[in-house]
Amino acid sequence: MSNEYGLRCPIALSLEILGERWTLLIVRDLFRGLRKFQDFEESLGVPPGILSRRLKLLEEHDVVVRRMYTEHPPRAEYILTKRGEELRPALLAFTIWGAKHIPGERVLVHQLCEHPVEMAYHCVHCEKNLAHTEMKGMARAARRTKKPAN
Amino acid sequence: MSNEYGLRCPIALSLEILGERWTLLIVRDLFRGLRKFQDFEESLGVPPGILSRRLKLLEEHDVVVRRMYTEHPPRAEYILTKRGEELRPALLAFTIWGAKHIPGERVLVHQLCEHPVEMAYHCVHCEKNLAHTEMKGMARAARRTKKPAN
Repeated sequence: MSNEYGLRCPIALSLEILGERWTLLIVRDLFRGLRKFQDFEESLGVPPGILSRRLKLLEEHDVVVRRMYTEHPPRAEYILTKRGEELRPALLAFTIWGAKHIPGERVLVHQLCEHPVEMAYHCVHCEKNLAHTEMKGMARAARRTKKPAN
Repeated sequence: MSNEYGLRCPIALSLEILGERWTLLIVRDLFRGLRKFQDFEESLGVPPGILSRRLKLLEEHDVVVRRMYTEHPPRAEYILTKRGEELRPALLAFTIWGAKHIPGERVLVHQLCEHPVEMAYHCVHCEKNLAHTEMKGMARAARRTKKPAN
C-alpha cells in the first residue's frame, strides 16, 4: 500500500481544507443562508477563535468570500463562492446517509412525490447514471492527451 | 437561527461519527480494499492509538465489523458493513470536488467515454434526476403518516 497515495488523493486534499471539526458544519450553515460571524457562533456554539480560523481557511481556499456589509462598525459577512456551492453534493450525501442510519431524523425527499432522494453518479456526456463499477480514476493529464472513446 | 437545529441535523450527526481527523481517510482505505490495522497505519501514517480509537468508533456505529483472521497470534481485520458501503457517495463527492478544485489531481471518469463524472440527486420512485431545488427535508414521521402526492 503506497504511503504516497495515502495523503495525496483528492479526498485527502479535500479533507485538508474541510476535515477539521466544525468546518463542514459552517459550510452547512452557509447553505442554510447564514452569513454573519455571530450567526455561526449561535448556531454551532463554536468558540470564536476556532470559528475565525475556520472561516479564514475557507476564505484562503476560495470556498467563501468575506465582504464588509457595514464599515461603522466594521462588520463582515461570508458568502459561498462557486467552488463552495459545489460542495453541496458532499453535504447532501452526508445528509442522506445520516438520515437513513440515525433514527428519528429528517429525510431528504423529492418535493413532488415525497419519496427519499438517493445520490447518483452521472455522466453528462453519455446522459446516464452510472454504477460505481462503471467509473475509474484517471490522471487529469492523461485525460487531456488521450482522445475519449466516444 | 435555532441552536437546536445546529447540532441535531443529519449532517452534524454523521460528522459525530465521521468528522474526526483520519476517520474518513480510514473509510476511503477500506473502500480501496485495505483491511488490516498495519495497512491503515502504513497508508496514513496515523499513530496507532488514534487509529485504534477511530476503528473502534466505526465498529460501534456499525460502519465496520471486526473479524479475527488468525487466532495465533490474534489478528483482526476490518470490513465495511452495508451501512459503511453506503458512505461511498459521500466519499466520491469529496473525490470529485477535490479533483476539480485542486490542481494536478486525478479525475473520476466514466470508464466507457472517459468524461468526468458528476454527482446527481435521484428519485428512485420517479426515475429521474433532480435539481437541488426540487428536494426538501421532511421529518421521517411525517413521511410515514402522510400519503405521497403520487
